[in-house]
Formats: sequence, C-alpha cells, structure tokens
Amino acid sequence: MSSSQRPHLVIVGGGFGGLQVASDLEGASLDITLVDRRNHHLFQPLLYQVATTLLATSEIAWPIRRLFRDRREVTTILAEVEGVDTGAKTVRLTDGASIGYDMLVLATGATHTYFGHDEWARVAPGLKTLEDATTIRRRLLSAFERAEIETDPAVRDALLTFVVIGAGPTGVELAGIIAELAHSTLPKEFRRIDTRAARVILIEAGPRVLAGFSEELSAYAHRALEKCGVEVRTGQRVTSCTETGLAMGDEVVASRTLVWAAGVQASPAAQWLGIEADRAGRAIVEKNLTAPGHPDVFVIGDTASLLREDGTPVPGIAPAAKQQGAYVARVIRARLDGRAEPGSFRYRHQGSLATIGKRSAIMDFGRFKVKGTLAWWIWGIAHIYFLIGTRSRFAVAWSWLWIYLSGQHSARLITQKEIAEEDGPVTPPKGAP
Amino acid sequence: MSSSQRPHLVIVGGGFGGLQVASDLEGASLDITLVDRRNHHLFQPLLYQVATTLLATSEIAWPIRRLFRDRREVTTILAEVEGVDTGAKTVRLTDGASIGYDMLVLATGATHTYFGHDEWARVAPGLKTLEDATTIRRRLLSAFERAEIETDPAVRDALLTFVVIGAGPTGVELAGIIAELAHSTLPKEFRRIDTRAARVILIEAGPRVLAGFSEELSAYAHRALEKCGVEVRTGQRVTSCTETGLAMGDEVVASRTLVWAAGVQASPAAQWLGIEADRAGRAIVEKNLTAPGHPDVFVIGDTASLLREDGTPVPGIAPAAKQQGAYVARVIRARLDGRAEPGSFRYRHQGSLATIGKRSAIMDFGRFKVKGTLAWWIWGIAHIYFLIGTRSRFAVAWSWLWIYLSGQHSARLITQKEIAEEDGPVTPPKGAP
Repeated sequence: MSSSQRPHLVIVGGGFGGLQVASDLEGASLDITLVDRRNHHLFQPLLYQVATTLLATSEIAWPIRRLFRDRREVTTILAEVEGVDTGAKTVRLTDGASIGYDMLVLATGATHTYFGHDEWARVAPGLKTLEDATTIRRRLLSAFERAEIETDPAVRDALLTFVVIGAGPTGVELAGIIAELAHSTLPKEFRRIDTRAARVILIEAGPRVLAGFSEELSAYAHRALEKCGVEVRTGQRVTSCTETGLAMGDEVVASRTLVWAAGVQASPAAQWLGIEADRAGRAIVEKNLTAPGHPDVFVIGDTASLLREDGTPVPGIAPAAKQQGAYVARVIRARLDGRAEPGSFRYRHQGSLATIGKRSAIMDFGRFKVKGTLAWWIWGIAHIYFLIGTRSRFAVAWSWLWIYLSGQHSARLITQKEIAEEDGPVTPPKGAP
Repeated sequence: MSSSQRPHLVIVGGGFGGLQVASDLEGASLDITLVDRRNHHLFQPLLYQVATTLLATSEIAWPIRRLFRDRREVTTILAEVEGVDTGAKTVRLTDGASIGYDMLVLATGATHTYFGHDEWARVAPGLKTLEDATTIRRRLLSAFERAEIETDPAVRDALLTFVVIGAGPTGVELAGIIAELAHSTLPKEFRRIDTRAARVILIEAGPRVLAGFSEELSAYAHRALEKCGVEVRTGQRVTSCTETGLAMGDEVVASRTLVWAAGVQASPAAQWLGIEADRAGRAIVEKNLTAPGHPDVFVIGDTASLLREDGTPVPGIAPAAKQQGAYVARVIRARLDGRAEPGSFRYRHQGSLATIGKRSAIMDFGRFKVKGTLAWWIWGIAHIYFLIGTRSRFAVAWSWLWIYLSGQHSARLITQKEIAEEDGPVTPPKGAP
C-alpha cells in the first residue's frame, strides 16, 4: 500500500509492544502502517480500575492515530486482521482488503480463556477491553441496585455475593477494590440493604495468591486481602459457572456477579503464520523474536513465547512487551543500515507490582521487596509516570487524589445494555490447543 | 413502602426538576422515595460535548444515590415506572412492584421525536442519554476511520459528510464542534483523506437558526457557524433519512452520519394520569403545577405544559425545571406545616445561552445581549458553576483548559457495538398525539 520506494513495515496491534516498535523507529528510513481493530491504545494495567468505578474509560485509553500525528510516515488503520500470507507478503483484513509488507510485526496480544468452557463467558466476563470493564462495572453496580429492591432474602444474598475467579494480579486487584466499594464507599447510600454485609470471594486453583511473587509477599497479600474483607479460597477449582452462581466440586456458591480473571489465551498469530505454538497458543519465536523460517516477521508481547536463559518464560506483562518492541526496532534499524544485528533478545525483569485495595501494595525487585502503604505510593507514582500525555497523568492523579481524600469513586455509571460480553474476543482462537 | 407515619413523597425522575424537589425538602418532616430508570443524574446541557469527544461520560453524570447519601429519609430506587394509579395512590413499576405515595412528583422529562418517522431513529440518532452520546461519538469517529480506508470516492465523500437536523441550541452546538473537529483537530492525523474537506451541514425547517433568540443574535450565530465551516440550510424540510443519506424534497444529500436534533416529545406522564396533553405530549398542569383533579400529584419540567402570563410557554430548559422543583418543594412544605400555599408558579427567565464552536457564544438576558468570545467565557464559567461537586467542576475545567491550550479533545474513543440506538427511548410514548 506504500507508494514510495522505502521499505514498508506493517505493525499489527497498538498495544505496548506495537507502539514501542513504531515509537523507536522515529526518523528511520521506512514507511509504517499500524493496524489495530480498536481506535485506541489501552493502558491495560489500570483497566481493573475502570471495572471497579475508580477511573473513567477515557483516562486510560488514547486514540492511536493521535499518538503518531506528527509522524507523517506512520499511517494508522482501524481494521481487523484475519491472516497473513507469508508467500505474497501480505496481511489479510476482514473487510477483504490486504496490505503488503516488507517487514511485519505481530503484536496482537492475548485474551482470556475458559479452559474449554466458553459457555461461562456470558456469566463470568473477563477483563481485556474497555467494554469488558464497563460490563463488569455495570454488573457490580446493578447487583447492589437490584439487592436494594429485592424482597427474597436468598436472592438478595446472592446479589450481594461477588466472586472473582483467579488470584493473579488482576483478580487480586479486582477483589480488593470490590470489597472496598461494598464495605467503605457504598454503605451510606443504601437504605434497605447493608452493603457491608456483602461477600467478596476470591477463588484460586493454585496453592496461593499472586503465585508470581515470593511466598512471603504472597502470604502478605493474602492477609491484606482478608483485612479488606475478601474471602480467599486457594486450592479450589471452579467446576461450573451459571447465572445463579458457581460450583467448586460439591460446594455451590450462590452469586449473581462472577468475574473471570483466570486463564490467558494468545491471539492466533501462530496460526496465521503456521508455526508452532505453546499451550497457551503463543507463537514460539527465535531468540531474535522472528518467526521460525520467516526472518521478516517478528512476533512480540503476549502473543509470543520465549524462554529466558534460566528456562523461565518471559512474562506476559507490559514491560516485557515494551522491551521486545524496543529490541525489534533496533534489529530493523540495523537491517536498514546494513549493520550487524544485535544479539539475542534478553529480558530484564524490572520488578513485579500488585495492589491490594486502596492503600496497600506489594513489589518485588528481586533483592529488595516492599509492601504496604509505601509500595502503594510507589505503584501509584510509577503508573502515573507510564500514562501517556500530560492530560491523562493529571486527570488520573486528580481522580486518585479525590478518591484518597473523599473516599468517593468518580465513575459509578451504569451504561449500556447487556451486550458487551459479546464484544470481547472471548472465544479462544480456532484450532488453539 | 414507607413504614413510618410520616407522609411519603414519591419523585419519579432524577433530572433537574426531580432533584430540586428532593434537595429543597431537606429537613422537612416526610419520607422521600426517588425513582429513576438510570442510576445517574445527567447534566444534559453538556451532553453534546460527550457526543463530540470534548468530555468524558463520567464528567457530566453522577450517581443519584450518592447525592442523597447523607439524607437518611431519602431512598433511591433504580426502576422504571409504567403507570400511576391515582385511586390507590400507587406508582406501578415495570418489574410488577408498586410504590404507594401520599404525594407524587412526576419529573420524567422528554425525548426526541421523529414526527411519525420512527424508522429514522436507527440512522439519525438523537441526543438524550449517555448511550445516545457515545453512539453519535462512535459514528462520527468511525466515519473518519472508514473514509481513510475507503477506495470508492463517492462513498468516501458520503463518509465525510455530516448532517445535523434541527438548528436549536443542541443542533447548533453539535454542528459547530463537528466542524471544528474535522477542520482543526483531526487533519494532521490522517494520511489518505483531508478531513478539512469534510462537509458539515445543519438543516433547519424554520426560517432561522436558534429561533428562541432575537433575530440579531440568530443572524450572528448563522454567520459564526459559517465561519466555523458549517453549511447552514434554513427553511428546508427533511423528507427522508436512510443509511446512505437524506432527502429534502428532490434534493438528496449523500451522508453516512446523520444526527437528529429536531423534535421533542414529552414522556407519558399525562397518559399515566389520564389528563389532557399538549401537541408535544406534555401534561397540561394547573397554575400550582398540580395535575387537574389530582391536587397531590405535581408534574414539572419538560413533561409539563404551562403558559406564562404573556401567553408564551414555559421553555423546556434546565432553569425552568429547577424553578418548578423549588416551587413544588415550597408548596409541599406549606402543606406539611398547614400554612397557606404560595401563589401561582411564576417562571423567571434568567437568559438564553448557546455556543457556536469552541470560541463563540451568544447570550440573551433580555435587555442586554452578549456575543462572541466574552459570551463563550461567561457560558463556560456558568456551566462549570452548575456542575455538581468539586471533582466534576475541576475535571471539566481541566478538560476544557486542555482543549483550549492544546486543541486536543480528550474523549475520542470508539466503544460499544452498534446497539446503543436501541437503548435510548426513541419511540414516542404510546398513544401520544
């Protein structure tokens, strides 16, 4: 589609990885087409705050084309990719059009998976898109509203029982804020129900919460969650999710609000390329992040599978995607300049962070670990730093400051009808394991 | 539903009128139930700014129950009313429940009407709810996105033609911002289309724009719109709206984005009560705002019809609804205290305001009229003043300041699927004239 003689790089996906590639190639002698099926880049680490009424949608999402308005060589396209023809070197779009490339970066991310139980998606939405977040927000707030007018005590109790499935960072963060919403923010606003009696249950199949952290920090987080009023249930496997609750083997929990934070499934980049994928569907890539047999195709971020030198996988988090994006930009620059390419990609783990409720967090920087209020402040400042643009930094800082001072959440809106669960890509990619 | 011996006031509708009644009755010896089908009060005068990407949804909407959290005698219910039994003195909800009242205030507002062409609603959404606003925002932004990848020049031109039908304040404000978006904000972000070539057409059946203002201010607004790049077409009646454009008699305009800002239809309060309504479906009320024959039922705001002493109707604007709400609260207090009720309701017109684009406005305070940038500043400060709560005032002020300094809009998100048009109450009430 590029009419110039300069090489044409196509980047699919405007997440952290894809944006980093485009950003780091500023001034390079090539044309870039950036394709995404959404018009906005989403700051996913804070998406749970939209789902739990702390932040507004526009505070964590930015129009992608806005970010590159001053880069005349970057063309942004709102379109959905459905395949790659590596022979013809084209990317196929769902609208029938195709885009030719000289080099291709697939940074298409991941979504949640229900481990073969796609029928759970309707009753237990996951959290990957803005629509997912507003769906969860609507269900949370509606449950309290319906409980206020419900006359059947059993139904009312089910409406006031909130279950989060999966105790990774997202699950822990969701459960903490939901508990805080029920126990601190809402009580004075209802007349017939006592929202402080609401149950928030966090279910984890593994032996402990936040398994990616050290046992000590994990145990701290467990205690901090219980202090927030969250019932933590580790070593429990969900066997059924329905509109009236869920089952863990013989035990049944009556709940009208389930949230899914358990499984991750890569986008189908590996299938598009016809290359090997790992169990989660991630494309297994070479040490320079190219697809095996396709030196002009890079796969990065949550949709790529790569082992570190110590045999552990590169984690599916924003800093890893950004490092991979920066590395790919260096490889491409070297190729354009005819220089030797950099050595294998090496992931540098900068630390792990997770928040519990509104005042506590844990951080693990390897040798030094921080927990409690100090960690929460570091977490907050770091996240504001990584937001894009002065406007958003200021807006989020103001929202948080307001919540901190007033205890009031700013985005408690019930909007849309019950459709958004069809909006997210909840179906695992065809043919994925 | 009130279990105490105090009189029970039911207020249906949490708009400007309903909230004013509840607010002004603080400390009065009665129980209040406030019913709304949405969980939020909406600051409708700024809704067009959400539709045109200037503001975020949560900046102009507040959870109703939050506003009354410290008023223990006020119970807020999220429910939809479908009728009133004035004999039994109950309000009927769509879920089958009913609420008994001693006194009732119907402040249920109005929606748009298509003058018998309900089939136009799908292609030309109106602007009454947050979902309407995000629908229009999505269509606006999607039209530019689709134009960027469209290869057929005729379709591209239709995608870059935006039509607003109706040149009252909402239509004028929408057209001005859309033109500004196309001509100033977006041009640098697109590579294949020139958004400055986009056409924005404002169609008005009457002889002039902003007919509620003096001829001089109306003429000024007309010129200001043209200066913004809006094509103003007065004295033109739309005869057909379809997915590919609209017709005005023999003239056809190819457009993929139509916005309806033409007709207003009251909610069915008059039907619920079985009382006379005017042409727009508004309940014709007594001079003390009660329904004829029902001294315990008040009808206020956009769903009430009342003539002023000079024979002109009380306008359907926020200040009128608030004045009526305040008046009804005074009547109720007098009744509770056994005092003489205040005399007839008298509407005091405080002035009319409308903005054109981002830098100009007109205001008519009767004897003195202001136009241009000064009017715009007065308009902005007045609107920030009327927002609810420090947080929103600050957030909106910051958004506007940011737009003013950077020229960038803050809420340019395409969200949801094409469903929101089913969300708004676009069908005129059954049996309305």
